[in-house]
Amino acid sequence: MNNKISVGIIGATGTVGQRFIQLLEAHPWFEVTWLAASDRSAGKAYGEAAKWNLSTPLPSRIASMKVSPAKPDSATPKLEDVPLVIPEVNGDHTQLIKTQKWYKDKGGFMVTNPNCSTIGLVLALAPLHHGFGISKIFVATMQAISGAGYPGVPSMDILGNVVPYIANEEEKMEAESRKLLGSLNGASVVPADLALSAHCNRVAVEDGHTESVSLKLRKPAQAEDLIAAWKQFRCLPQKLNLPSAPEEPVIYETAPDRPQPRLDRDRGRGMSAVVGRLRPCNIFDWKFTVLSHNTIRGAAGAAILNAELLKAQGYIS
Amino acid sequence: MNNKISVGIIGATGTVGQRFIQLLEAHPWFEVTWLAASDRSAGKAYGEAAKWNLSTPLPSRIASMKVSPAKPDSATPKLEDVPLVIPEVNGDHTQLIKTQKWYKDKGGFMVTNPNCSTIGLVLALAPLHHGFGISKIFVATMQAISGAGYPGVPSMDILGNVVPYIANEEEKMEAESRKLLGSLNGASVVPADLALSAHCNRVAVEDGHTESVSLKLRKPAQAEDLIAAWKQFRCLPQKLNLPSAPEEPVIYETAPDRPQPRLDRDRGRGMSAVVGRLRPCNIFDWKFTVLSHNTIRGAAGAAILNAELLKAQGYIS
Amino acid sequence: MNNKISVGIIGATGTVGQRFIQLLEAHPWFEVTWLAASDRSAGKAYGEAAKWNLSTPLPSRIASMKVSPAKPDSATPKLEDVPLVIPEVNGDHTQLIKTQKWYKDKGGFMVTNPNCSTIGLVLALAPLHHGFGISKIFVATMQAISGAGYPGVPSMDILGNVVPYIANEEEKMEAESRKLLGSLNGASVVPADLALSAHCNRVAVEDGHTESVSLKLRKPAQAEDLIAAWKQFRCLPQKLNLPSAPEEPVIYETAPDRPQPRLDRDRGRGMSAVVGRLRPCNIFDWKFTVLSHNTIRGAAGAAILNAELLKAQGYIS
Amino acid sequence: MNNKISVGIIGATGTVGQRFIQLLEAHPWFEVTWLAASDRSAGKAYGEAAKWNLSTPLPSRIASMKVSPAKPDSATPKLEDVPLVIPEVNGDHTQLIKTQKWYKDKGGFMVTNPNCSTIGLVLALAPLHHGFGISKIFVATMQAISGAGYPGVPSMDILGNVVPYIANEEEKMEAESRKLLGSLNGASVVPADLALSAHCNRVAVEDGHTESVSLKLRKPAQAEDLIAAWKQFRCLPQKLNLPSAPEEPVIYETAPDRPQPRLDRDRGRGMSAVVGRLRPCNIFDWKFTVLSHNTIRGAAGAAILNAELLKAQGYIS
Repeated sequence: MNNKISVGIIGATGTVGQRFIQLLEAHPWFEVTWLAASDRSAGKAYGEAAKWNLSTPLPSRIASMKVSPAKPDSATPKLEDVPLVIPEVNGDHTQLIKTQKWYKDKGGFMVTNPNCSTIGLVLALAPLHHGFGISKIFVATMQAISGAGYPGVPSMDILGNVVPYIANEEEKMEAESRKLLGSLNGASVVPADLALSAHCNRVAVEDGHTESVSLKLRKPAQAEDLIAAWKQFRCLPQKLNLPSAPEEPVIYETAPDRPQPRLDRDRGRGMSAVVGRLRPCNIFDWKFTVLSHNTIRGAAGAAILNAELLKAQGYIS
Repeated sequence: MNNKISVGIIGATGTVGQRFIQLLEAHPWFEVTWLAASDRSAGKAYGEAAKWNLSTPLPSRIASMKVSPAKPDSATPKLEDVPLVIPEVNGDHTQLIKTQKWYKDKGGFMVTNPNCSTIGLVLALAPLHHGFGISKIFVATMQAISGAGYPGVPSMDILGNVVPYIANEEEKMEAESRKLLGSLNGASVVPADLALSAHCNRVAVEDGHTESVSLKLRKPAQAEDLIAAWKQFRCLPQKLNLPSAPEEPVIYETAPDRPQPRLDRDRGRGMSAVVGRLRPCNIFDWKFTVLSHNTIRGAAGAAILNAELLKAQGYIS
Repeated sequence: MNNKISVGIIGATGTVGQRFIQLLEAHPWFEVTWLAASDRSAGKAYGEAAKWNLSTPLPSRIASMKVSPAKPDSATPKLEDVPLVIPEVNGDHTQLIKTQKWYKDKGGFMVTNPNCSTIGLVLALAPLHHGFGISKIFVATMQAISGAGYPGVPSMDILGNVVPYIANEEEKMEAESRKLLGSLNGASVVPADLALSAHCNRVAVEDGHTESVSLKLRKPAQAEDLIAAWKQFRCLPQKLNLPSAPEEPVIYETAPDRPQPRLDRDRGRGMSAVVGRLRPCNIFDWKFTVLSHNTIRGAAGAAILNAELLKAQGYIS
Repeated sequence: MNNKISVGIIGATGTVGQRFIQLLEAHPWFEVTWLAASDRSAGKAYGEAAKWNLSTPLPSRIASMKVSPAKPDSATPKLEDVPLVIPEVNGDHTQLIKTQKWYKDKGGFMVTNPNCSTIGLVLALAPLHHGFGISKIFVATMQAISGAGYPGVPSMDILGNVVPYIANEEEKMEAESRKLLGSLNGASVVPADLALSAHCNRVAVEDGHTESVSLKLRKPAQAEDLIAAWKQFRCLPQKLNLPSAPEEPVIYETAPDRPQPRLDRDRGRGMSAVVGRLRPCNIFDWKFTVLSHNTIRGAAGAAILNAELLKAQGYIS
């Protein structure tokens, strides 16, 4: 029929699975041809199995597709040689694929994208780290409910409330940030030499993670240097003109009360990190706020951009 | 009729003014006898002038009281000799009163309480600072809408949203914390030798400010030392058995997802700071979450406790 | 130890079970001595089994009580002779107890309280029905999330949203209202001769069901007649001075924008229905808004008031 | 430069003014060339005068346009000969323009669109009224905060709350619905012979008014007849292929818990009314829920569709 690359989605009925379907519906390179979910959904038509929770309609072609059973045990190995990738940050880490046994045997391979709270942060950190070196980072997050999936957070827990705890989230932010900003040394990643301390909170926001950040640089830099670094940040996905790549991976907002999740999460079709409120920190050097869309840039869109990079790099064809 | 001390409230129709009325309604020592507000309200009965916004009924005695015009210019001098006081933290700073010209002339004087976001934080810091010395503090706040008064924050700004900016709030937290934890040197306060960096955010919560805190101590301490310091924290208001003093100024909660504003803001009748999630910080020493009720402990209740202290100290009779 | 009547709670860990514990903690007549819940909770201490979700602390005596397994099949028979009771409305229907087989055999019996959305409505209807006769009622509800229990409504379904559907709720409101306003005829209840049409909606409110009501009367009445009927409404629980009986079962609020759940749900310690906005209906006769606390007056408090009535009537001793 | 028709916006900085700018940005026929607002904004660049509150960026061309002072007194006459129009419902009422003095004198004229809560309702009623005749309607609304403009509803009034009152809204719904469904008789509109009773409530929803409706028909009809009437409803805007006309003015949703504002307000690019939950009413004939986007279909989009109709009818060129 067409030359698009077939895509399968595991966990297709969940919050992120739905975003995959939405974002891939008109994709120029990829086409969803296989949907899998838990045993409860398997065998049903997708439209019947999923409680569609997005404000764009469920595509009718997808609605009638049959859901296959997921085999999560075979799908989630934890391997040292699985690259953790943000295309704008460490697109070269995909080379680790070549060390994967599967790849050597049959050409199959696995690549992952980071946690939703990590991606927005690291997009904002990367140009600063490359330009000036970052040694220490404090970050306090205010994360959206969609990050917990569906049914996820009970309304009685979050309406008019804050939950100052997300299991394992702080540990992930700390480990993944160092890995993403690290460098390849042959077949392994050397984590960046920086310390990160995270405080993760859940707030009553539908989509969009907001993060308060303080950081210490290795080289002195002025506010205009940081802003210039963010504005000039153009990377592999932008150079390769990947379909899901935002024109500006990092957008700097000058209004004193921005970014805000309701107003800024859809910038760059949900793929840009939006930074604002850059001001001096009286312990470290600088503080600012960063926001990104947790189910687009932080999940489904991240994986699609990874896939686009892998196609451009020749791993997928 | 009775021997209660007469109290006047300036800004009586506002969010904090209403809390004053609520909290003083059955007070054993004080009685509201004078209410003042802006020209728009002056001359009206209070019940007509105020849009009562609390879930306890407006007392009928108050409803029928006539509102006087406020003269805010005479009421808000910024004087070096006005003590900034949290009774549990620096109750001795009230001595500054004696240096006030008014006091020497006629016995009148002025005392203030800190900003709502400062009070909860400093209650949690004080026992640690006294026990181990604090040198550095990071704090990111998630503040309730009631902190902005009424009409205050437009619903279109905060519903399903976060606003990462509260004008002048970060500066206040930084300056006030050092002053409150500082020491008296004759007629002036020597600020504590510590650095604080604040990130202030507004979230969709009615009452209760939640704060993510990281801190560095001067003396090494274990988690159990910190928890013991909080639990044993009993101060002047508790010793003097002041009517509004909470039994425990700081409550430590062990559940991993606490404190939460909806569940914990009313602890100690809204006068306790609730701390939880103590865990190591991989940049400083420790991190934790602290919550306090911003219009009780952070505003009206704070001022009433100050007044109670001043009566116990003999400044008011 | 004392002469209080022992009380057991089935479903003790749920939203309503927690309210029972809260409301019974200082009850003059009753004492919780047995707690039961699902198999998942059985055998654990209550404090461990339940995720306590109220803003008053879990009583320590209760926290250490062991949870028994619930046997819901034996606890939920659907019997014609089980009275459905609101003490202010149809306290005489408890006579049906005498026809229960259990009661005749061993003195045990069963009494139920209505659905949470029915109770507030029927409290407002009862004095009008008694005074003027009601023939037709339209009601559209805006119901709080706590009515669905915990975890109940997912936050992704209700944050910034309305769900225009609550399974079986409309049918219950229609059937129960007629029964509660009906009359005893020997051993059975003759439902009131009135028609009710309900539209049930879920909104982003923690506690308190708000209902828009239009009604047609059999006898003409002026606004002041209706308001007088509500204000004068004093019934069996008030005459018997039952501990949980509100002084005023129905409170009429004159402010044009009341009742509101956040401001009015706790009136009469959560046991009063609050009515406002009485105005002519240009199809039926009158329209108004009624609000009541769904987990106090609409659930746990309702059952406790029933129990108090049953004690006063001699069924419990 | 181009042949687009110049458009001026009065109240350009407000919530609806912003929607006008957003919706007209890529309009094929119209171009915004004049912006007016209150004296406070006049003389400033729009980007400086307006607090842009939409999630799509403010177009840079608009941001730099200078805001003119509005003269609201000349802009809001209440004339009998000003047609109140929904193009799908009463597009022929624009003939009233010809009776306007301005039109006869200079070709200028005035047309208005209904209140936001009326439009969605009347779109759902029109096909039923035309097919079966409607005699009585009950409607209870749950209206979004954006309907009150900015700053509009204070967050302290609506967070976790319902406000059962919107000034003048019920009267408008009752009068406008009869007028829109009425017929032209020479130079005047004969209101439809039907009675409507409205209960208007504000809820914590950003955009999208949800309405619970009961109605009585003059001719008997089955559920499938009503659903067919909605599905087949295609009118002047659809026939004329107007740029802002939704393909389906009324969409019927079969899921039992729909429509919902968060999920359905953007259907038909915010220009469709979404209906669901059709079920028998045990007082009237039928009940259902209808939802529409209040600032698109209910305000800016409504006016733009009116303008498109007027161009197609030759009033504008």
